[in-house]
Amino acid sequence: MYSQLWVEEQYKEFLGLRYKVDKVLFSGKSEFQTVDVVETVGHGRMLLNDGYVMVTERDEFIYHDMIAHVPLFVHPNPLKVLIIGGGDGGTAREVLRHSKVESVTMVEIDKMVTDACIEFIPKTAACLSDPRVTLKFEDGVSFVKKTAEKYDVILVDSTDPIGPATPLFNEDFYRDVHAILADDGIVVSQGESTFYEAEMQTKLMQIKNGLFDISMLYQFTNSTYPGGLWAFTYASKGLHPIRDFKADRVVESGLDFEYYNAKMHSSAFSLPTFVEKRLAHLIKE
Amino acid sequence: MYSQLWVEEQYKEFLGLRYKVDKVLFSGKSEFQTVDVVETVGHGRMLLNDGYVMVTERDEFIYHDMIAHVPLFVHPNPLKVLIIGGGDGGTAREVLRHSKVESVTMVEIDKMVTDACIEFIPKTAACLSDPRVTLKFEDGVSFVKKTAEKYDVILVDSTDPIGPATPLFNEDFYRDVHAILADDGIVVSQGESTFYEAEMQTKLMQIKNGLFDISMLYQFTNSTYPGGLWAFTYASKGLHPIRDFKADRVVESGLDFEYYNAKMHSSAFSLPTFVEKRLAHLIKE
Repeated sequence: MYSQLWVEEQYKEFLGLRYKVDKVLFSGKSEFQTVDVVETVGHGRMLLNDGYVMVTERDEFIYHDMIAHVPLFVHPNPLKVLIIGGGDGGTAREVLRHSKVESVTMVEIDKMVTDACIEFIPKTAACLSDPRVTLKFEDGVSFVKKTAEKYDVILVDSTDPIGPATPLFNEDFYRDVHAILADDGIVVSQGESTFYEAEMQTKLMQIKNGLFDISMLYQFTNSTYPGGLWAFTYASKGLHPIRDFKADRVVESGLDFEYYNAKMHSSAFSLPTFVEKRLAHLIKE
Repeated sequence: MYSQLWVEEQYKEFLGLRYKVDKVLFSGKSEFQTVDVVETVGHGRMLLNDGYVMVTERDEFIYHDMIAHVPLFVHPNPLKVLIIGGGDGGTAREVLRHSKVESVTMVEIDKMVTDACIEFIPKTAACLSDPRVTLKFEDGVSFVKKTAEKYDVILVDSTDPIGPATPLFNEDFYRDVHAILADDGIVVSQGESTFYEAEMQTKLMQIKNGLFDISMLYQFTNSTYPGGLWAFTYASKGLHPIRDFKADRVVESGLDFEYYNAKMHSSAFSLPTFVEKRLAHLIKE
């Protein structure tokens, strides 16, 4: 391309985020969604599903650090981890850095996403060849309904509830997640834009509040997610993300992070007043 | 307009943020910069200087809460406050909510900005008619060089260092700021995009580290600032933003905030690891 090439994420009807593109690396249409990988000028390689930015090489460390290390440093013995979604592999990569983890089962509905990332975004997807990983290309909703396994940590690393991920924002799904979560288990889910998706975020908190003993929200800020402020929901059968967090374990792990650290772990649970007011009645700690 | 009307902030060469616009309310060109106020579909009224989004009605509370309340709840007796820049009035509005504050001097280089905000964005600018406010339309750099006053809190609420605000990112300016800061004074400055302006942010920290006894950085996330993660630099002649902060004062003030609260105050000083690594040698606490 010798002309100007840009990709634009259109968010709601009033916002557009445009990224200058060097090269389109992959464009496909699966039975679930469109899948594009582009080489951007400012953010490295970028994955878009249905035109929404999922991952960029430049800032993916923020999301993946925060979805994985918060629960994995709270849980004292996270042997079996289940990832629902997470097709780009970034979440699995961070989970696998924890030496206690014996198995990671990743249930991604759309094989095209993972295949495209293995080929074009090895930064996140190369880890999927790790022998501890079991890849299942199937519907996460039916997987959690039928599996006989129990998991210590479940990470719901889904897209927004407009495409194939829609059923992942329902109570039925979380009832099944609760059933396959070990007695001291933790479940963390992509918790939507605090600023633009308040209703959806509140709904997710309502569901978790009704099912789990502990139900909280924590914040992070990606550079390429619209509106800056974004969240994960944290729920567990008893483990508290701050009271049961031993900061020493982070140092003892010998792991080095780009975003995560013990201070960020706890600080992420401080909520801006407008979020606190909206969610106070749904936070159980 | 019966067609699609959008305004686009072009950030660096690789990023564009587009906002749907209902109506252009004001467009002017001062001797310093272009000034536009538009009514957007998603963010209320929006001020742009030289095409950069300065303020939107929807998310301005985040920036203004964090620039004002962090220093004003640390300083035990903030009587005299100086604002350099801050033409939209939002910073002054939050400062004025503190009953101890006796005077706010606001030195804005560009009268057109303030006039446009008084007319079209009263949400931030209406406060400027408060009798405690002295408005001076002049260059902040010469003001701090010549004034004989001393200030308890100085807030440098500037645009980015590409237009008229460029000299506000120099050591000479901060030498003068240091000279007019009371012995227990605090200075907080707009500290740039943590993600996209790392070099400028580091430079600002270097300057403050060389001149002040305490020099730190704290984070916030606006929805309409590119890259999400944004920062303020905090410097003082001794007051520490966490050790000298009494959370009770927030409750006792009786003030209600949309973003700020005692937990957010302290959490904002937790830095992601990549920021900590870059700035550790410049943080003095």
